[in-house]
Amino acid sequence: MLAHLALIGTGHIGGSLLLALRAQGRVDRAVGYDRDASVARRALALGIIDEIAGDAAEAAEGAALVVLATPVAAIVETARAIAPRLGAACLVTDVGSVKSLVGEVERALPYPERYVGSHPIAGSERSGPEAACATLFLGRPCVVTPTARTAPDAVDEIAALWEAVGARVERLDPLRHDAVVAATSHLPHVAAFALAAALERPLDPVAPHLAGDSLRDGTRVAASEPATWVDILAANRAALLPLVDALGAELAAIRAAIAAGDKGALRSCLERARRGRARVVEAG
Amino acid sequence: MLAHLALIGTGHIGGSLLLALRAQGRVDRAVGYDRDASVARRALALGIIDEIAGDAAEAAEGAALVVLATPVAAIVETARAIAPRLGAACLVTDVGSVKSLVGEVERALPYPERYVGSHPIAGSERSGPEAACATLFLGRPCVVTPTARTAPDAVDEIAALWEAVGARVERLDPLRHDAVVAATSHLPHVAAFALAAALERPLDPVAPHLAGDSLRDGTRVAASEPATWVDILAANRAALLPLVDALGAELAAIRAAIAAGDKGALRSCLERARRGRARVVEAG
Repeated sequence: MLAHLALIGTGHIGGSLLLALRAQGRVDRAVGYDRDASVARRALALGIIDEIAGDAAEAAEGAALVVLATPVAAIVETARAIAPRLGAACLVTDVGSVKSLVGEVERALPYPERYVGSHPIAGSERSGPEAACATLFLGRPCVVTPTARTAPDAVDEIAALWEAVGARVERLDPLRHDAVVAATSHLPHVAAFALAAALERPLDPVAPHLAGDSLRDGTRVAASEPATWVDILAANRAALLPLVDALGAELAAIRAAIAAGDKGALRSCLERARRGRARVVEAG
Repeated sequence: MLAHLALIGTGHIGGSLLLALRAQGRVDRAVGYDRDASVARRALALGIIDEIAGDAAEAAEGAALVVLATPVAAIVETARAIAPRLGAACLVTDVGSVKSLVGEVERALPYPERYVGSHPIAGSERSGPEAACATLFLGRPCVVTPTARTAPDAVDEIAALWEAVGARVERLDPLRHDAVVAATSHLPHVAAFALAAALERPLDPVAPHLAGDSLRDGTRVAASEPATWVDILAANRAALLPLVDALGAELAAIRAAIAAGDKGALRSCLERARRGRARVVEAG
């Protein structure tokens, strides 16, 4: 039971975690803050938080657990903002999709041994507290990224928190995490953004009536909040760019084969694609 | 009620149409042929067809309806093969994803006024008669592509057939159809193939455990039968290539913005993507 939980950033992911912890009876009182006051008010109205603090530091004062659920680009500055008010026993986690900033967060905090980075792989194209859902993490992976500075019992406590809301916890080094999600999440988002942007052109008015699952599924995450993904893609640039180049090279190979009418070359591309799909998507 | 239906190509789409028509009590006897004898035998065992013919022409002999459900590249030659045995009253349709070949099919047939091209937009990454499903077309669009040569009652009969199995019928000129599906289906397939092929490389063994919905959805159709899609992409080259170039240009713009750390430019790309998604995918 968390006597006082602080939620900084009261949108989709943070809101879902709160609803899930509340459904498990694990939260006594939740204090929230969001730099967008309307988002915080809506989270309050939805029962995600019990009260709204005047700023992030005030929310964190006396907390047993602080969840940083801001956009990736605001995590480090938020850690700096709450640092003066944190107690020595307070656990801190974040839910950001890029973990190379874990070292900076540690340097910002007075008790870095009590900070454990988290990345629940359970987002969707939806955003805001209205999209929060207590079952969002059920059966989903959640990476936690302890470092040499992290206290083992802090890792166990954060892992237990995610397991309590139904997630499968994987422990990974922060940089290894970033390399993996560049392939499994960030590159698929780039592909969806490029596809959807290519269709932002005058189209036959019948086109939306003929949209099949390949179009729906292939562009779904292009409906995501742009600000969130600008941050994520920019923050994971080093791991992501070589993969974007590989995607560009495969697209060029398919284009060349179609243009040349070279069915053998096209078939090689499509067979490579089928093997790639089988490789990255778990059976079942 | 169709006293004798001929199904040439007894795989996923043709098999699903037969199961759906049977579920509606509309088929008395179905004769099938597939150039892969094992596929025909499995369709027979699954109750999709009642007997197997020795070749396509034999299957079509005496038929009230012939459904050409072969790969796109085999439709014209199959029309030529059945031509000598077709009766004047026999309706002919195909289920191919590219319709620029409708003129060639008309020229191959003795009664072109009784031929109506169809394209049910209801495929998936699955293939073979085992994937056939009587509910595949429920609520899905199906394009029919009559021409100036087509008899109006033939169009009505083929449209009624698709409506009987639950599809929403759209009537389109063949070339207009090809331009629309290049955007709504073929380009999304190209994007999925390129994405999945880019991931056909040595990856961290934990990667499949961290696959989220963006990866699953973005690569789903890359599991499709390569031979089917080699044919489709090659056949719709003219409409498809400019769209592949637009996709390549959007990918290059995203890549450049990430590489430059230019969040404003990246945001423009992602906002264009969000508008593109809203434009092509019907609400709801």
